[in-house]
Amino acid sequence: MLKVGIIGVGTVGASVANILRDNKNIITARAGIEIEPVLGVVSNLNKDRDVSIKLTDNIDEVLNDESIDIVVELMGGIEKPYEVVKKALEKGKAVVTANKALLAYHRYDLQEIAGDTAFEYEAAIAGGIPIVNALRDGLTANNILSIKGIMNGTCNYMLTKMIDEGVDYDTILKESQELGYAEADPTFDVGGFDAAHKLLILGSIAYGIDAKPEDILIEGIENISPEDIDFASEFDYSIKLLTIAKKIENKIELRVHPVLIPNAQMIAKVDGVMNGVSVIGDKVGETMYYGPGAGGDATASAVIANIVDIARRGKGSPMLGFETSYGEELKLMNKDDIQTKYYLRLRVEDKTGVLAKVANILTTHNISIEKMIQKPLNRTCAHLLLSTHTCIEKDINKALNDIKEAGVVTAEPSMIRIED
Amino acid sequence: MLKVGIIGVGTVGASVANILRDNKNIITARAGIEIEPVLGVVSNLNKDRDVSIKLTDNIDEVLNDESIDIVVELMGGIEKPYEVVKKALEKGKAVVTANKALLAYHRYDLQEIAGDTAFEYEAAIAGGIPIVNALRDGLTANNILSIKGIMNGTCNYMLTKMIDEGVDYDTILKESQELGYAEADPTFDVGGFDAAHKLLILGSIAYGIDAKPEDILIEGIENISPEDIDFASEFDYSIKLLTIAKKIENKIELRVHPVLIPNAQMIAKVDGVMNGVSVIGDKVGETMYYGPGAGGDATASAVIANIVDIARRGKGSPMLGFETSYGEELKLMNKDDIQTKYYLRLRVEDKTGVLAKVANILTTHNISIEKMIQKPLNRTCAHLLLSTHTCIEKDINKALNDIKEAGVVTAEPSMIRIED
Repeated sequence: MLKVGIIGVGTVGASVANILRDNKNIITARAGIEIEPVLGVVSNLNKDRDVSIKLTDNIDEVLNDESIDIVVELMGGIEKPYEVVKKALEKGKAVVTANKALLAYHRYDLQEIAGDTAFEYEAAIAGGIPIVNALRDGLTANNILSIKGIMNGTCNYMLTKMIDEGVDYDTILKESQELGYAEADPTFDVGGFDAAHKLLILGSIAYGIDAKPEDILIEGIENISPEDIDFASEFDYSIKLLTIAKKIENKIELRVHPVLIPNAQMIAKVDGVMNGVSVIGDKVGETMYYGPGAGGDATASAVIANIVDIARRGKGSPMLGFETSYGEELKLMNKDDIQTKYYLRLRVEDKTGVLAKVANILTTHNISIEKMIQKPLNRTCAHLLLSTHTCIEKDINKALNDIKEAGVVTAEPSMIRIED
Repeated sequence: MLKVGIIGVGTVGASVANILRDNKNIITARAGIEIEPVLGVVSNLNKDRDVSIKLTDNIDEVLNDESIDIVVELMGGIEKPYEVVKKALEKGKAVVTANKALLAYHRYDLQEIAGDTAFEYEAAIAGGIPIVNALRDGLTANNILSIKGIMNGTCNYMLTKMIDEGVDYDTILKESQELGYAEADPTFDVGGFDAAHKLLILGSIAYGIDAKPEDILIEGIENISPEDIDFASEFDYSIKLLTIAKKIENKIELRVHPVLIPNAQMIAKVDGVMNGVSVIGDKVGETMYYGPGAGGDATASAVIANIVDIARRGKGSPMLGFETSYGEELKLMNKDDIQTKYYLRLRVEDKTGVLAKVANILTTHNISIEKMIQKPLNRTCAHLLLSTHTCIEKDINKALNDIKEAGVVTAEPSMIRIED
């Protein structure tokens, strides 16, 4: 029998314990051994819980129990979990985690510390979708050309609603909070940080590159407006919060931000709380993985997949995908060097010469216009909504600066990158 | 160094050898060991090939070479490959195959014979998509409620063209053969047999159930007409060749046939030569896996994924997903007991009472009509196109028989199941 300790028995932890009980027979037949959740740790023992596992409020009861083979870390936070999993590994216990923030900051240290002990984290990325499995073990023949992911259900739910119902961001945020799809303080999700943590982990598996959240471009969905959604629809795009990884020669791009993406792309069809990750390999072409990105049972499904893997074969694949070091020559691309197409929303005075001014500024910075709509807002102001051909991030930033300094806009310009 | 012998160096075999060379550095870093394709077997040594591997026409040169660790079987056929892989396993060589027919007939024997030696077959199902990986290793916490797959690129390419261009089956078949998407004798693909082989393997991984092609319902796309495509579009369905596995209490349904499927479902959006497999687990919900189902490089990507797995850890998961026997109480459902909705195309004489006759016959067999279109074909004949509510296969068959015997149809009725 394999004994499992669960540190942090919240929604996911309770699901892990309950599924191990509910589906015990088939899990045992697949693993070749019984898997028993023997002890769970919570901070408040008095809270009512519907969960089939013995509980304690003392983490050391799990860490010091020599009969426990696998520790499941579901604590939330970064440094406390880091200390806990390090102790577990030092005691030779395998670790399974869902903690994307922990891995965003400490994954290479943990790979080092774990050594030959299994450390698995399928549940940290895209909930129940076995994406780590696919990327790390299913696509090893390939140079990964790109990864594009919708990996935050809160943002995707909100944007899908904005598209379907035409309402504004603040209204949707409030609704989402009431339904439990967004937190009271939603920043971590709507600001793109949660998605960024997941992207960093995938970037390491794909490229062998280490990077921290501070190193990459992260923008959230807080500034998306109904006008943006309408422009996108007009030209058959959807707006999604996308995590993007790309390899361009020896540079790796890692970035998270809203995008206009053509409706014809499979990833654009991922709606609501669902997640989707498109991975293009140089030999396999485009693959995509789709499923629920969150939820107790869906996330627990991924945790248990790791537990069964460990039961079957101990440590399997190298934790972050590479047995020997690789990619020293690969460098993280500087944000300013990003090349893509851009959508701009400019609120201007409806006066003679404004359009010409804007066009001239763009031209000066090597930016050419692909599509444009001018929409009067009232008798004095208008929206200029335009998309550019591919150009460089530093040039767009300079152009936006010049546009503001020229005094032609009456509000902060909006910019959304286009992923064509 | 891990040495690989490739038995059958056709398109896929050549890709395997070439990718191991082209992407050698990153594959070595991921596997932790160099992987060298040392010998390939072909039947005709005189043929011009662009491949970086030493060739022989003698299979035994691979099987008897003690330095060869892994045999890749890409021969095609069933009994000859069976003998070859058995010999390889007896000599302690790991085996990687793309041979779905071999597995359709011999997978349980091979699991037994392989024992603790790795026998992997990711490339046998859905080309480059790591679906075995996902189903066998990523979803182990779940009872699999259903699998729905578009797993034959030939059929999907042809049906997509019929939908997009409105042309008839024979025209599309000819075009597809000219483009190399269909064989000179296309029966194995268009008849649904190729897809059926793949479904049987997934059914074993999901349920622990053995079944042969002869045991299950297999229907191809040869009778799909533009009228069927139009009816489907009218009601926002697409027509796809679908492989279906379902668990209903202790019965397992396995079947392959064309379906009308709602355009809103993710699987309906899989077009052209692409494959897609939707798997619903009782805990994770719906997941989907999408990518190229065929092609030298895409299939070789899956072969090499298995090779790297073996390099990293030898034998990992139980070959067919279960370490200990499971599912003895599960029974394969009889075709007659299938319950679903049906679309019928009836060519009738445009006479008084024909519609009433048809409706009465359906009612007699507990079949009720959901949607219907009557379209005049010429001055004497019309098409009755209708869809039913859920009913039983045996009842539809009886009703169709009665309809024919009543003399109201002037051509063989068409029936396509609806997967709502």
